[in-house]
Amino acid sequence: MSEYPKTGKNRIRQAPQRATYDEKTVHAILDEGYIAHIAFDDEGAPAIIPIYYIRDGARLLIHGSRKARIFRRLASGIPLALAVTHLDALVMARSAFHHSMNYRSVILHSSAQTLEGEAKARALDLFVERLEEGRSKQTRPTNKTEDKATMVLAIPIKNVAAKQRSGGPVDDAEDMSLPVWAGLVPIETRLGDPEQD
Amino acid sequence: MSEYPKTGKNRIRQAPQRATYDEKTVHAILDEGYIAHIAFDDEGAPAIIPIYYIRDGARLLIHGSRKARIFRRLASGIPLALAVTHLDALVMARSAFHHSMNYRSVILHSSAQTLEGEAKARALDLFVERLEEGRSKQTRPTNKTEDKATMVLAIPIKNVAAKQRSGGPVDDAEDMSLPVWAGLVPIETRLGDPEQD
Repeated sequence: MSEYPKTGKNRIRQAPQRATYDEKTVHAILDEGYIAHIAFDDEGAPAIIPIYYIRDGARLLIHGSRKARIFRRLASGIPLALAVTHLDALVMARSAFHHSMNYRSVILHSSAQTLEGEAKARALDLFVERLEEGRSKQTRPTNKTEDKATMVLAIPIKNVAAKQRSGGPVDDAEDMSLPVWAGLVPIETRLGDPEQD
Repeated sequence: MSEYPKTGKNRIRQAPQRATYDEKTVHAILDEGYIAHIAFDDEGAPAIIPIYYIRDGARLLIHGSRKARIFRRLASGIPLALAVTHLDALVMARSAFHHSMNYRSVILHSSAQTLEGEAKARALDLFVERLEEGRSKQTRPTNKTEDKATMVLAIPIKNVAAKQRSGGPVDDAEDMSLPVWAGLVPIETRLGDPEQD
């Protein structure tokens, strides 16, 4: 079992029993998502953006408009924190206090590097492949103008930890006989039937 | 139609046609979510956390353990950026470039204030009510020890903007006859059948 190294930046202090640094778990959580949230400093104030991402080995790839100021800011290599979160269930307990959520999340601290040339072209294919396998061979390829307008950034997966909760409510022993419904309300997320344009 | 004021901090520069400051839209997006991502500075480095939130009028409420270092940091009133994002569909275009996502998101820049006493007790009820109406009357109430261990923070909704995309792919005229499937793949999120503990 391969693990991402523990560093000063990714050690989970709060509820550490829910944390893992296992590569397989980290990658599985990342591979299920489409949208990451990225936090960074924007001229002295915290900023956050939701963004489409894909995983390519031990890095994440994002892309955006060269015109977007905050995208150019990320491209400059400033420190960033990135989170991907899946909410799996509402955890309904017998006591107000023990209500919780089942979730799987990954948080990492890294910085972005701009991709150009071959690496960029390959990444642009991967963004389409993530949506449907084989699709990058079918769609009209990116032309020069579009390529010029687009930036592709790679974010190495490092200082990373996954955190997850699963299972039912954990109530206090003396509350177990209270006449309150307790259990899980699953949150189901799935792809629906495609709607042709 | 009531709008949140435009400030230097919430004007959407990128794809401004997708932005709105309309209170009703902002609130509707916030009311549908359970998890927000909060970005803040953690001793000179950007930090991000996913967290359960509820809306209470023109503010959001979050709660967490008094022992959690980063929660205490938020409670100190430092600047924060907060995002709630719903992904509605993958937008499949005829060209690689015009692939997109349908989404609804809210981003705000604010800071947190600690709630105590009556205001805190009311908030703790609201956290449970959000999961199921009437539930705060059924569950065993928070006791003194639990109350002491919990912090409740209020985050005024300000410097806020919603951004959304809907509808099908927008391909270039010359690509419309390409033999590529184009349309929407909806992302469906719903509460599943409750599973009793």
